[in-house]
Amino acid sequence: MKAVVYHGPRDVRVDNIPDPKIEKPTDAIVRITSTNICGSDLHMYEGRTSFEPGRVFGHENLGEVVEVGSAVEKVKAGDMVSAPFNVSCGHCSNCEHGLTNYCERANAPGIAGAAYGFADMGPWQGGQAEYLRVPWADFDALRLPEDARERQNDYVMLSDIFPTGWHSTEMAGLYPGDTVVIYGGGPVGLMAALSAVQKSASKIMVVDRHPDRLRLAEEIGAITIDDSKVDPVQAVMDETNGTGADCGCECVGYQAHDPQGHEHNNATLDRLVQSVKFTGRIGTVGVYVPVDPNAPDDLEKEGRVPFDFGLHWFKGQSMGTGQCPVKRYNRNLRSLIAQDKCKPSWIVSHELPLERAPEAYKNFDARNEGWTKVVLKPQMQ
Amino acid sequence: MKAVVYHGPRDVRVDNIPDPKIEKPTDAIVRITSTNICGSDLHMYEGRTSFEPGRVFGHENLGEVVEVGSAVEKVKAGDMVSAPFNVSCGHCSNCEHGLTNYCERANAPGIAGAAYGFADMGPWQGGQAEYLRVPWADFDALRLPEDARERQNDYVMLSDIFPTGWHSTEMAGLYPGDTVVIYGGGPVGLMAALSAVQKSASKIMVVDRHPDRLRLAEEIGAITIDDSKVDPVQAVMDETNGTGADCGCECVGYQAHDPQGHEHNNATLDRLVQSVKFTGRIGTVGVYVPVDPNAPDDLEKEGRVPFDFGLHWFKGQSMGTGQCPVKRYNRNLRSLIAQDKCKPSWIVSHELPLERAPEAYKNFDARNEGWTKVVLKPQMQ
Amino acid sequence: MKAVVYHGPRDVRVDNIPDPKIEKPTDAIVRITSTNICGSDLHMYEGRTSFEPGRVFGHENLGEVVEVGSAVEKVKAGDMVSAPFNVSCGHCSNCEHGLTNYCERANAPGIAGAAYGFADMGPWQGGQAEYLRVPWADFDALRLPEDARERQNDYVMLSDIFPTGWHSTEMAGLYPGDTVVIYGGGPVGLMAALSAVQKSASKIMVVDRHPDRLRLAEEIGAITIDDSKVDPVQAVMDETNGTGADCGCECVGYQAHDPQGHEHNNATLDRLVQSVKFTGRIGTVGVYVPVDPNAPDDLEKEGRVPFDFGLHWFKGQSMGTGQCPVKRYNRNLRSLIAQDKCKPSWIVSHELPLERAPEAYKNFDARNEGWTKVVLKPQMQ
Amino acid sequence: MKAVVYHGPRDVRVDNIPDPKIEKPTDAIVRITSTNICGSDLHMYEGRTSFEPGRVFGHENLGEVVEVGSAVEKVKAGDMVSAPFNVSCGHCSNCEHGLTNYCERANAPGIAGAAYGFADMGPWQGGQAEYLRVPWADFDALRLPEDARERQNDYVMLSDIFPTGWHSTEMAGLYPGDTVVIYGGGPVGLMAALSAVQKSASKIMVVDRHPDRLRLAEEIGAITIDDSKVDPVQAVMDETNGTGADCGCECVGYQAHDPQGHEHNNATLDRLVQSVKFTGRIGTVGVYVPVDPNAPDDLEKEGRVPFDFGLHWFKGQSMGTGQCPVKRYNRNLRSLIAQDKCKPSWIVSHELPLERAPEAYKNFDARNEGWTKVVLKPQMQ
Repeated sequence: MKAVVYHGPRDVRVDNIPDPKIEKPTDAIVRITSTNICGSDLHMYEGRTSFEPGRVFGHENLGEVVEVGSAVEKVKAGDMVSAPFNVSCGHCSNCEHGLTNYCERANAPGIAGAAYGFADMGPWQGGQAEYLRVPWADFDALRLPEDARERQNDYVMLSDIFPTGWHSTEMAGLYPGDTVVIYGGGPVGLMAALSAVQKSASKIMVVDRHPDRLRLAEEIGAITIDDSKVDPVQAVMDETNGTGADCGCECVGYQAHDPQGHEHNNATLDRLVQSVKFTGRIGTVGVYVPVDPNAPDDLEKEGRVPFDFGLHWFKGQSMGTGQCPVKRYNRNLRSLIAQDKCKPSWIVSHELPLERAPEAYKNFDARNEGWTKVVLKPQMQ
Repeated sequence: MKAVVYHGPRDVRVDNIPDPKIEKPTDAIVRITSTNICGSDLHMYEGRTSFEPGRVFGHENLGEVVEVGSAVEKVKAGDMVSAPFNVSCGHCSNCEHGLTNYCERANAPGIAGAAYGFADMGPWQGGQAEYLRVPWADFDALRLPEDARERQNDYVMLSDIFPTGWHSTEMAGLYPGDTVVIYGGGPVGLMAALSAVQKSASKIMVVDRHPDRLRLAEEIGAITIDDSKVDPVQAVMDETNGTGADCGCECVGYQAHDPQGHEHNNATLDRLVQSVKFTGRIGTVGVYVPVDPNAPDDLEKEGRVPFDFGLHWFKGQSMGTGQCPVKRYNRNLRSLIAQDKCKPSWIVSHELPLERAPEAYKNFDARNEGWTKVVLKPQMQ
Repeated sequence: MKAVVYHGPRDVRVDNIPDPKIEKPTDAIVRITSTNICGSDLHMYEGRTSFEPGRVFGHENLGEVVEVGSAVEKVKAGDMVSAPFNVSCGHCSNCEHGLTNYCERANAPGIAGAAYGFADMGPWQGGQAEYLRVPWADFDALRLPEDARERQNDYVMLSDIFPTGWHSTEMAGLYPGDTVVIYGGGPVGLMAALSAVQKSASKIMVVDRHPDRLRLAEEIGAITIDDSKVDPVQAVMDETNGTGADCGCECVGYQAHDPQGHEHNNATLDRLVQSVKFTGRIGTVGVYVPVDPNAPDDLEKEGRVPFDFGLHWFKGQSMGTGQCPVKRYNRNLRSLIAQDKCKPSWIVSHELPLERAPEAYKNFDARNEGWTKVVLKPQMQ
Repeated sequence: MKAVVYHGPRDVRVDNIPDPKIEKPTDAIVRITSTNICGSDLHMYEGRTSFEPGRVFGHENLGEVVEVGSAVEKVKAGDMVSAPFNVSCGHCSNCEHGLTNYCERANAPGIAGAAYGFADMGPWQGGQAEYLRVPWADFDALRLPEDARERQNDYVMLSDIFPTGWHSTEMAGLYPGDTVVIYGGGPVGLMAALSAVQKSASKIMVVDRHPDRLRLAEEIGAITIDDSKVDPVQAVMDETNGTGADCGCECVGYQAHDPQGHEHNNATLDRLVQSVKFTGRIGTVGVYVPVDPNAPDDLEKEGRVPFDFGLHWFKGQSMGTGQCPVKRYNRNLRSLIAQDKCKPSWIVSHELPLERAPEAYKNFDARNEGWTKVVLKPQMQ
């Protein structure tokens, strides 16, 4: 089958590789019909991680079940399913408590959490390919309703970024009527904004500097703050009578950089701490890494982030971090889509066949205007 | 009246100052019978803060109401009361939501949170004195049961350190049966350990290096880890089958230092991040400050704490911070004392008249063996 | 001043009575500009309660502060305020824990909970009058933004029915994407439906039999079920693939009756238990009473409700009950109104001067078509 | 193998029946070494349910895995395991949300919730036998530590009554320092009391009339109330300054009866509503049934319980009901046992070989003095 394979920094190619097979009785094989390129793929694409050449990308996957193992009893061939990016066993202590983002059995011993096609997240092959093996299929595959074939660009968001944006608002403790500031207007930040709309935030402030992203935020009713033009902390204060936002979402990650392109891994956290009120909560879904050998700075190489923790403490803020437990939310967000309460596909800029993945990676990595979100269609001719 | 007054770094004296008076109809005047010296008093004592000479120390106060203003309807003269260290109005947005630790009216505009006798925490005089003015007395004073006069050393812990230790276990999400690691075996850390006992933690690990503190921890059933002798992270791993503690409490603060006395404001947080399991929660009640002009290091001067945030994120941990909302817990902890379910006075090493405060400060600041907790008795002859 | 006074069953009149005065230093006097007639007024109006002739109705009050006592420091003359129907002291154990619906000081000893102008809810005079005394004004009066004078019909809903409808969805555990069934399409049921819209329920099913109410429910996107025409339990099952709604709201109360007008106090609870799924939650804000001397049935006279508790248990459902703690929600709902996220005034059918209260009571009590919600305007000429 | 088989009302026998076999790849076979008789077995034993003659009793099971299916990857032959009484698939919507008490796949379509050897709870054979088939073994079997073979009478309580008692305190919202009243001092009520001890309730009041049960409650520090001698509601009021208990646990069920043996299915709920304070919560784990054809009263035949719902509502209480989700708690309670923080075996009165089950049922059903809890030992000669 064809698959998007990593060959080295900024070098992805569509190669022919063997089809996946049922390896365990709990597996399913899914024919992928929609699979997104994610902002977190870019860390690997740029060579900032330990991702090995030869591995297949893709953790935002949707498709049709074509085969199931002998122990699979719920999911059946013909089902349209969304595969959460978290690979999870369903019976370890974390999975049983809903912490499928930190499954204790799907990665190496001592490391919790796994994902398809991801550095340091276990051996699982990615889904930017014609087929994907989904382990623990009854637990990991979410069945979709009848209209899934026609509305793939909405449902495909259930595997990662819609739940991930939602999770940032959950960790931020967003309650209807609250004000919220979201740093980062990329796909995850936009999904955080959509989540805040669904939850009836009274003001949703999105900070970014790319016009196409800010435009998308505006389309769903957010207040946009262009940090290449204004001080975003001051802008938030102006919108909140000087108290700061009730809560904040970090949707940027460790590669935060200034308009000149210089990285400061503490930049977003600093601004969040300043923008969010005393007692406010912050949900950090932007990726931070334990080691970053190619970072520009010694502290950063060790994964250290020298942010204003003193102010954070003085203000009595709290913070949640880490990967999103997709299964905690994907059933209910599926219902919102199915009942036409929201259309997360509004951010999709491109639908492309698998063959055009290299071009898509290049443009998305460069943040080229208009490349806000790419859905690859492996079955497209 | 007599009061413990700050005269400059490491210089406190018992001076005669004017008695407090009813200033507003919601005030009460309390004759102080027990008032503790707190570890956080030492930041001011050492001259590491903006605390002005002439101010009176003391935020852990217990005593008898002697006079109330015209609008006070619940508290009456003759009542024995505990005054939470948080000064709070009861009707701002934060107070109404139980966030009395960040009252919006008791400090300067734009700064939430206030306390008696504390740097940057509003104008309120401290209670290491014969009398204390308690504002918003119906809201701020907790009435105590009949046995309060006889068991002052238990009830006096309700104003700060018992609730503060408890709060660290709450922010850490401690559920019965969990394992917990507590960094810092000072009075607050010991109260965190006591709280964990009351909540039926399955293992309580206390890290410190002072034999008197470790002995007190052991007395209530904790496992003690002497970090001057062993690697505490490894010790926690050994006790938890290599997974790390379910949750962690930070009871040290920004002046964390190595056995040689060199400060590293990130030292405790680093160890907590390493000692606590994937998905674990951390409750940080040790004090961190937004600016620290006398810190040994440039980052620290700005309140920055360069800890392993990358690992924290990778492990999907979350953290709560800040002052404790004493009122959230003090009624129920009062019941535990009244019903003989615990005796937080077990840590008290000294009962002294006000006049001996200078000697007490000196010994407590030096962490001299055996000076674990001092209760001043202003009415003692 | 003029006020709406109860003279006996189905007999209310607008009488001249003395103006209220500041009685305690914590009081405020409010000139009422909008005050609603509530469905719960009708229990008293019909003579089903112990409400004494001579008392003044009115617990949904909005107006302008004209005078404050000496201890009032936050609210000022000239402020537009919403007065929650719950009278609450702010410093008893319940108030401190946010349970202002069950204040321990505002009613007789041993009875928690108080309200303006209400049977068994303390001595507080109602606000269907030109002026109202608001006790504990800093705690009980919510200040409103600039646009309050122009948008009174929205903000007036903050004193009771918007929070009460919201509370039913909170007790029902409504999470975005859930399906919800609401029994009762009166003002509170419609506010529950509005709350469910704000919280992004995926399906909102409102059961009633009055066309004007069902029309209002439909206007905000609810699915309407006319229980005079179809079996509502079956209708809910049809909408939910046979599993039942995720959660349910009881907005009817003990005077539930069949289309022929016969009361069955268990009718709504039975249907809820049947309509809500296994493990589902139910929020019951419809009023039930401990004794009901004029009830048609012996069990009901004693406040007993012989509903299908066995099925309720078998399905593992849970239920919250009682008056709404308005202060828990009114700040955030105020923000939703202020930021134009919703318009709870859409249910208002009549704005009338105080003098026309008798006519309004008569029509509202008769459920006459088109009398969905009446706002009295005491300053209207 | 030998098994305890139901032959009709009050007629159980130890019969020889075929051994269970692996039927699905996710199954395990467990050799039962300890299996309790439960109070809920008695509803079936007495013929009050639809339990068919020929079925095997037993849902409190502990033993050693002897064989696993091809898809079982965590549990292995030789493991000592506790099997929660809830049979649950692990991948339906309820199981995924931790509601394993209401699994949607382990019973007939449309009915959620299943158990071993239980009327209306699915086809699963009970474990009062030499062997038990455990379906979905990786999800359903909890592995036990090394000392499990020696401390079976502690660990066997993990399959039902320890978690069930705990669950009642969870649904009751018991927070450390609260007062709690527990109606019913049978095994489940005693476990609720033990749970309240572990959670540091300030007062634990247990109501029953059997001296052996009251003695066991007293042994762990509870205050006992003998309702054959005093009015329990008044006794609770006396212990709580007239306010009522902070929360309450229902551990009796629909067969509540007066000292003369007459059943009143509303008796316990009435007393709870009266004994628990305004705003208090009630956790009802005592069993209530949707239909009860042999009940003495017409309402009861239909599963109706005519309790003081009006007072319940007036006091703003809330209530949780239903089967316990054992898996939510069993890991942490296992840790409490393993770390010697509690010994739930203190209630065990008899260890008997399977053959003596008929005698045990007879005595336990008669509430004969001293028969507080029977553990059957199928491997005992």
